[in-house]
Amino acid sequence: MRLDNTATGVFVIAPTPFTDAGALDLDSAARMTDAFLEAGANGITLLGVMGEAPKLDAQEALEVTGVVLRRVAGRVPVIVGVSAPGFAAMRALADGAMDAGAAGVMIAPAPGLRGDDAVLAYLRQASAAVGDAPWVLQDYPQLTGVHLSAAMVAALAGEDPRLVMLKAEDHPGLDKLTAIRARLGARLSIMGGNGGIFLPQEVERGADGIMTGYAFPEMLGRVFTLVRAGERDAAHDLFDLHLPLIRYELQPGLGLAVRKHVLMRRGWIASAALRSPGPKLTAETIAEIEVILARLGARDPASRL
Amino acid sequence: MRLDNTATGVFVIAPTPFTDAGALDLDSAARMTDAFLEAGANGITLLGVMGEAPKLDAQEALEVTGVVLRRVAGRVPVIVGVSAPGFAAMRALADGAMDAGAAGVMIAPAPGLRGDDAVLAYLRQASAAVGDAPWVLQDYPQLTGVHLSAAMVAALAGEDPRLVMLKAEDHPGLDKLTAIRARLGARLSIMGGNGGIFLPQEVERGADGIMTGYAFPEMLGRVFTLVRAGERDAAHDLFDLHLPLIRYELQPGLGLAVRKHVLMRRGWIASAALRSPGPKLTAETIAEIEVILARLGARDPASRL
Amino acid sequence: MRLDNTATGVFVIAPTPFTDAGALDLDSAARMTDAFLEAGANGITLLGVMGEAPKLDAQEALEVTGVVLRRVAGRVPVIVGVSAPGFAAMRALADGAMDAGAAGVMIAPAPGLRGDDAVLAYLRQASAAVGDAPWVLQDYPQLTGVHLSAAMVAALAGEDPRLVMLKAEDHPGLDKLTAIRARLGARLSIMGGNGGIFLPQEVERGADGIMTGYAFPEMLGRVFTLVRAGERDAAHDLFDLHLPLIRYELQPGLGLAVRKHVLMRRGWIASAALRSPGPKLTAETIAEIEVILARLGARDPASRL
Amino acid sequence: MRLDNTATGVFVIAPTPFTDAGALDLDSAARMTDAFLEAGANGITLLGVMGEAPKLDAQEALEVTGVVLRRVAGRVPVIVGVSAPGFAAMRALADGAMDAGAAGVMIAPAPGLRGDDAVLAYLRQASAAVGDAPWVLQDYPQLTGVHLSAAMVAALAGEDPRLVMLKAEDHPGLDKLTAIRARLGARLSIMGGNGGIFLPQEVERGADGIMTGYAFPEMLGRVFTLVRAGERDAAHDLFDLHLPLIRYELQPGLGLAVRKHVLMRRGWIASAALRSPGPKLTAETIAEIEVILARLGARDPASRL
Repeated sequence: MRLDNTATGVFVIAPTPFTDAGALDLDSAARMTDAFLEAGANGITLLGVMGEAPKLDAQEALEVTGVVLRRVAGRVPVIVGVSAPGFAAMRALADGAMDAGAAGVMIAPAPGLRGDDAVLAYLRQASAAVGDAPWVLQDYPQLTGVHLSAAMVAALAGEDPRLVMLKAEDHPGLDKLTAIRARLGARLSIMGGNGGIFLPQEVERGADGIMTGYAFPEMLGRVFTLVRAGERDAAHDLFDLHLPLIRYELQPGLGLAVRKHVLMRRGWIASAALRSPGPKLTAETIAEIEVILARLGARDPASRL
Repeated sequence: MRLDNTATGVFVIAPTPFTDAGALDLDSAARMTDAFLEAGANGITLLGVMGEAPKLDAQEALEVTGVVLRRVAGRVPVIVGVSAPGFAAMRALADGAMDAGAAGVMIAPAPGLRGDDAVLAYLRQASAAVGDAPWVLQDYPQLTGVHLSAAMVAALAGEDPRLVMLKAEDHPGLDKLTAIRARLGARLSIMGGNGGIFLPQEVERGADGIMTGYAFPEMLGRVFTLVRAGERDAAHDLFDLHLPLIRYELQPGLGLAVRKHVLMRRGWIASAALRSPGPKLTAETIAEIEVILARLGARDPASRL
Repeated sequence: MRLDNTATGVFVIAPTPFTDAGALDLDSAARMTDAFLEAGANGITLLGVMGEAPKLDAQEALEVTGVVLRRVAGRVPVIVGVSAPGFAAMRALADGAMDAGAAGVMIAPAPGLRGDDAVLAYLRQASAAVGDAPWVLQDYPQLTGVHLSAAMVAALAGEDPRLVMLKAEDHPGLDKLTAIRARLGARLSIMGGNGGIFLPQEVERGADGIMTGYAFPEMLGRVFTLVRAGERDAAHDLFDLHLPLIRYELQPGLGLAVRKHVLMRRGWIASAALRSPGPKLTAETIAEIEVILARLGARDPASRL
Repeated sequence: MRLDNTATGVFVIAPTPFTDAGALDLDSAARMTDAFLEAGANGITLLGVMGEAPKLDAQEALEVTGVVLRRVAGRVPVIVGVSAPGFAAMRALADGAMDAGAAGVMIAPAPGLRGDDAVLAYLRQASAAVGDAPWVLQDYPQLTGVHLSAAMVAALAGEDPRLVMLKAEDHPGLDKLTAIRARLGARLSIMGGNGGIFLPQEVERGADGIMTGYAFPEMLGRVFTLVRAGERDAAHDLFDLHLPLIRYELQPGLGLAVRKHVLMRRGWIASAALRSPGPKLTAETIAEIEVILARLGARDPASRL
């Protein structure tokens, strides 16, 4: 299965599960994969920003990729994040992932690139480095500091048929999403991001789905379907029930720990631990999450733990 | 009236109203002031980050301050933001504002300060520059890039009796708020911020109130009162109705334009224009705001336009 | 006199002299102006980054501009830096400066602009804001964080006849200077910068001169003339004698204090003080400057104090 | 051999040699090592910022370390940079390097750390991660964005006997070097850096030597010896001959390519190539380097190629 521009729906960004001691927890990786599929994921993305990829060595990255791919067994496309400081490492990981059955890879421009020309040159080289893999362009300037205009995305899409998807998470990014959609029509699959905090608006603006690691992916799919069905109020009603948790998960530097806590509470992973260095949740923070979860479960029975 | 550490409740950050042509709109400044007071504001803050202060010249800054102060007529404390690249300008604005009747001034550390010692030295000099004015320390690292630890805030509070309030808007900042409260007890009035997006949690963590420019300040007061009364669920129920708009207002670089649009729709200011350079809302964005406002009004009648 | 693209030679960036107490020192401003002219300056630039412009209020900025302009009395063009957070302030300062006899204004893109399109849009608006003044584009990404490509400079030069000069101080910037010169020919006067640390290379790459505040502007002119005369070795020999001081002046955050110390030692300004907040030189630093000055004076008699 | 606080002299930062095709060039690594030793290096540092470490995979990092260590054969201490996004990778590389015979490891604080407390906590954890290896603290805020005060360095030195050396390359950093020396006496070996551009001043301020990759390490040793012998003028005379090249090597993003070009011209490495992504020198830039080298060779015969 190769990723293409018809991809739609919910692509779940998977965290990398660790034991409390910091070892890879491959059992949890498998269980989590089952849960994502059962939750209706239309695709899974590994080793993204939230996957603690830079803390894995090359072998670990391929190991967790292998476990998830075997578990998915071709039912949905799996995308592997391959951003790396050097193209050699990018190529090695992309080759390994595609050989193991990935449907495509995801690339973000390297931090520190200056000027549109340098950004385009980098992305052309990166595309060459990943061989013949279909690829997702991740537009996440909050992390990279790199700006991609609609014209730049269009230029890349016009010249590189292997570029099939845009993960659109500039912030603010809704007008940019509109501009890119207007320029490119169906040339790219466009996925929203940013933890889902603008999900209904993104879909209304023409996004083909969402790629994020929000800990209740079922809701993402339900909202997507409702918006597409023209049930705007029902979509917003459901989404708004989850907004308190979405907001809480979006705290920079802390959000992944929150998300892993919820996944652990759902029984999808065994430990909420991040690999060191990483934050630990305080008792006060855990108590706040629990209040939010309790309120959510009382209002959206499908999200009751 | 001088600001002191007993301040509590809702301090509204006032925008600076302009005409469509970019001139100061002092009529709107007066009308907006009346509206804030009627909405139950316990204080008003002028020339904050959201007040487009750097786009005003020194005379304009004093002019808008004078209009608001005369309108308030001593009913609530008025705080004036005086952050400036040089201490001379800071002193001049602080003197002018205090002479005109302000209750205190607000200072953020200058961007680019490196290391705790340099930050403390700067704030000591800034405190000296504002003479005998009570002052608010604005902790807003998303804008300044400057980190303030709980220990640094405690050090300043321990040596400077004119430091009476902390505007706590680090992000994430809830555990820091808890730490500062634990260290300082009632020594400082601590106000939350960040557009109110963590209002219930901030008050539950011990904040004395909130200082933000969210366009429905009435809600802020109601939530504050409910939390203080132990009505946690009622507080969250009300707050959650506003979260879609709070989130929409928080988009960096766009948020103030959203906020001014809502204030204009409420009839509190005549024009939603920002002084140039500044963003303009697209038709799509305005439509999204209107959907959010309609949904809010249907669910919180007190917020119906 | 209006600045145009035939400008050549040494444009001295003037500091703003203050008394030890932080007041404007207009006597020193006049004396310094005389000294610059006597040193052979082909132009003078006021209120640049090194002129502590953000620490002046609007009246002070016009005051110091007036003193220098009256002293120059039309003998060389005077350029006034007008970068400001708002276009209203930019327009007011540009109008005041041009009315008082300035030959042009200098504009840097505002920090925080994202993407080539936004940068171009900003600069078009800024050009409109300064009315009919000829203007200098300052390309100084170390300070602004904004990248300007050769294509962007060419686009602006192609559409805006009032853009007559580029202050080229990207770093590294020599290949960019070559690229811009190749694209634009004589359309723009191109001035080097960065304290002069690449002066010979910049002129060899085609720069029309240099705009910097190095404290021995006479040397800048001699090196420029030698390179233009094909005396490469003599040019480098002279330049290399000054490189120890040039390097010492380039320390970020400290350089202006070093430069003012040297200007004070030359008798051109009365006090080396920066307006607060600003660094103070330690005894060790002053001793190092004095060693460098003594060695320079022994080797370049024209630079003996 | 274990690194300790008596280390003195010139520690050469070694680049990682690649073939034009981007493969590790271990022959060059061996030849370069011989050349460094013959040039009088008192130590060698591998996998520093200039060693393109993030572009190596874990095995390559150990491979190049092994080649250099075997070649050095215990004659001087070899330090291995182990900064990494995760402590697991840091530990693995430190263990591997120490097992292979390294004398110590070098650690810089991770980019993005906020506040003195977080920086200290990170460095304590990093020190624990490298087991019982002696370590060098690299203070390089231009790259990391992290500020270390003299008090913070003193705190770490006071509690961690394995911290034996400081690579002091804050900029400006001379007064800080003085302050740290005054506080710590001989507790730490303090090495200057920043390409050597302040070498004489650093040694006069009390540095025990210099750790940098300047392509003529012989000069570094001669200047160090002259300053220590009280021959200040001779030291500066020699140093100033090299300053044009030192300055040229310091261009951010370009400097390593310049340095590798000079090392190739000296015959120490076979190719000047950086591993992709990385800059390529233009013909104009190479011509400028050659002029500088020719002038240097004519004036300092020991540096003639």
